[in-house]
Amino acid sequence: MATNGHTLKAFDEDLDRLRALITEMGGRAEHAIIEAMRCLSERDLDGAREVIAADKRIDELETETERRVIQLIALRAPMAGDLRDVVAALKISGVVERIGDYAKNIAKRVAVLENAAKIEPLSLLPEMARIATGMVHDVLNAFVQRDAEAALRVCARDKAVDDFYDSVFRTLLTHMMENPHNIGQSAHLLFVAKNLERVGDHATNIAEMVYYAATGQTMADRVKGSEGIGL
Amino acid sequence: MATNGHTLKAFDEDLDRLRALITEMGGRAEHAIIEAMRCLSERDLDGAREVIAADKRIDELETETERRVIQLIALRAPMAGDLRDVVAALKISGVVERIGDYAKNIAKRVAVLENAAKIEPLSLLPEMARIATGMVHDVLNAFVQRDAEAALRVCARDKAVDDFYDSVFRTLLTHMMENPHNIGQSAHLLFVAKNLERVGDHATNIAEMVYYAATGQTMADRVKGSEGIGL
Repeated sequence: MATNGHTLKAFDEDLDRLRALITEMGGRAEHAIIEAMRCLSERDLDGAREVIAADKRIDELETETERRVIQLIALRAPMAGDLRDVVAALKISGVVERIGDYAKNIAKRVAVLENAAKIEPLSLLPEMARIATGMVHDVLNAFVQRDAEAALRVCARDKAVDDFYDSVFRTLLTHMMENPHNIGQSAHLLFVAKNLERVGDHATNIAEMVYYAATGQTMADRVKGSEGIGL
Repeated sequence: MATNGHTLKAFDEDLDRLRALITEMGGRAEHAIIEAMRCLSERDLDGAREVIAADKRIDELETETERRVIQLIALRAPMAGDLRDVVAALKISGVVERIGDYAKNIAKRVAVLENAAKIEPLSLLPEMARIATGMVHDVLNAFVQRDAEAALRVCARDKAVDDFYDSVFRTLLTHMMENPHNIGQSAHLLFVAKNLERVGDHATNIAEMVYYAATGQTMADRVKGSEGIGL
């Protein structure tokens, strides 16, 4: 197999394009989460419909990433660290697609939450969304820069999202007990909170993939990895 | 690159081993879901701890799958349909690992659901679990047999899981309104129901991967694909 400068340069360009695709996906997914939360707070049904429609583009970008990964492997036969990078790109695009699904799921709930603004715990959720999407933003930057240490730092922030979730969960249950006529709406907000908590988990999962791609080692040896889905 | 019989046979053997790994992961994930539901119904805390501990093995099998996929691509440089199969194996193992996480999540709730047996909607959940894990079982068989039509048939069954979920959701909300002192426990059961609904979605996602691997076409052209996460 050719390993001259020309081929290496072509591979690096392919990889840069892959990274750019994932950065675009990530930007769209972050925006979708924040925008879905705004629509929920402001009861913006038109905005929610746009978030739902825009998810299709994230799905297409995932398909495009997969297509290019397969092409790149077939054409350039990358080895070792390069192959880890390419496989990480494939896996990360799958995770980012799911973050887009969470945004869409939140947006879908706008229509059923006609009095959400009156449910006080709702006011906590946009800040939770900012922390979780901030993690996604930073971990995708860490991927682009192959920065294992930055990925580690993102993991450390998941505790804040989990604590936020526990607080929202308790507050919503109290709200349900005090306002039984709002139980349906509060239940939907429980799922919104859960979705945001999952966004933080997914950022942590991506961090583990970035760490492995950059170092060839699993993060488990450095820090305690993701414990799966919290309660 | 060598494409003689010997190399092809070696590739097929590698691929068979990959499929066997995924079948093992799938069997463990199915069992974990069913067993977690049993522990929830019977308030079996020891059993729940075993489900939680056993998830580690599913995680290890995912890591093993990824390691073998990377090795197989590097050594055998598969093309076209073979490469699609290998990439599908990688993606499917990631989805099965998440199904294992859902089982673990359900098992974790056994400890907080001390009176779950008294919550009547709980009786609906084991049947929902059976339908969802049945989908996982059949779609992984479809993967092993490269059977695109069988994958399509699995997708059709997701509607039953979604209908079950809607019914459980409504029943749990009614239960919450009638028994405000059980709101905390009912909220946990809402998440259990949601986890089972997601298992059905994941089986559908795997079906799409199997269809693409087997045909090179996306399922979207044949049937309406997964709509992401339902409410």
